Amino acid sequence: MLIREATAGDWPVIWPFLRAIVAAGETYTYPRDLDEATAREMWMLTAPGRTVVAVDESGTVLGTAKMNPNHMGAAAHIAGASFMVDPQCGGRGVGRALGEYVLAWARAEGYRAMQFNAVVETNTGAVALWESLGFRIMTTLPEGFLHPTKGYVGLHIMYRQL
Amino acid sequence: MLIREATAGDWPVIWPFLRAIVAAGETYTYPRDLDEATAREMWMLTAPGRTVVAVDESGTVLGTAKMNPNHMGAAAHIAGASFMVDPQCGGRGVGRALGEYVLAWARAEGYRAMQFNAVVETNTGAVALWESLGFRIMTTLPEGFLHPTKGYVGLHIMYRQL
Repeated sequence: MLIREATAGDWPVIWPFLRAIVAAGETYTYPRDLDEATAREMWMLTAPGRTVVAVDESGTVLGTAKMNPNHMGAAAHIAGASFMVDPQCGGRGVGRALGEYVLAWARAEGYRAMQFNAVVETNTGAVALWESLGFRIMTTLPEGFLHPTKGYVGLHIMYRQL
Repeated sequence: MLIREATAGDWPVIWPFLRAIVAAGETYTYPRDLDEATAREMWMLTAPGRTVVAVDESGTVLGTAKMNPNHMGAAAHIAGASFMVDPQCGGRGVGRALGEYVLAWARAEGYRAMQFNAVVETNTGAVALWESLGFRIMTTLPEGFLHPTKGYVGLHIMYRQL
């Protein structure tokens, strides 16, 4: 698996699985009917942010991550990141590889911490992954997320210093 | 004291004290050299957000608040808000009046909670005010804010359900 900067040519491959993940409405706070132009603008970042893809040996895109400052000004040393893994490529360590990548990127860029603003508590696979990468659940906003089948569930704020 | 919707004509009165508060760099995560056009765009919100001013009996602007969704999609029921009180008008209950206003607004708009993303822990007056209005410190991001004289201090995330 290789992680490289995302290019314009990757977007048509990212969009179908990103759209499916967003439309499912179980893990992200994006509008479920997110349109492609808005999605592209939100996902394909330029400096100081960055967007990457994880590809296999044949060049197939398996997943993507974006990373960016999470705050401005006197808190601009806290980074943020978001991840989308093609559901057809689950269980292959793509999320972990992308997570390790964004932590290395943030350290190299001089960030002092990384914060995830909204991790849905029922997304237990993601929570366990981020904990294994050193993130802590700092708090859980009660009833912060309206899950399509489980109703109101908590929204974790996760954080780790670098 | 009256709280009313902010108009374009209020901006020239808001900008000097907003600029001074931001330039001091002690309480907000905005860039300290925030330019006027960016400040105006960030502060003077339109629907679904709203910006108000608190004025005294003679119509003088004492402070201002903006309120808005804090998340999108399945977490869009969490509101956010920010406050600026003219330092020359401190101690007159302006912050409290604006806080009570935004809570009433959020309830009326159907929000289920309000979240403050970044309350500097050394801003003890604000922390005490929000606690008195029912907010709780959910967590403190360690070293989340670089204070100009105190160095790295914590950044509270405060929350209350409505």
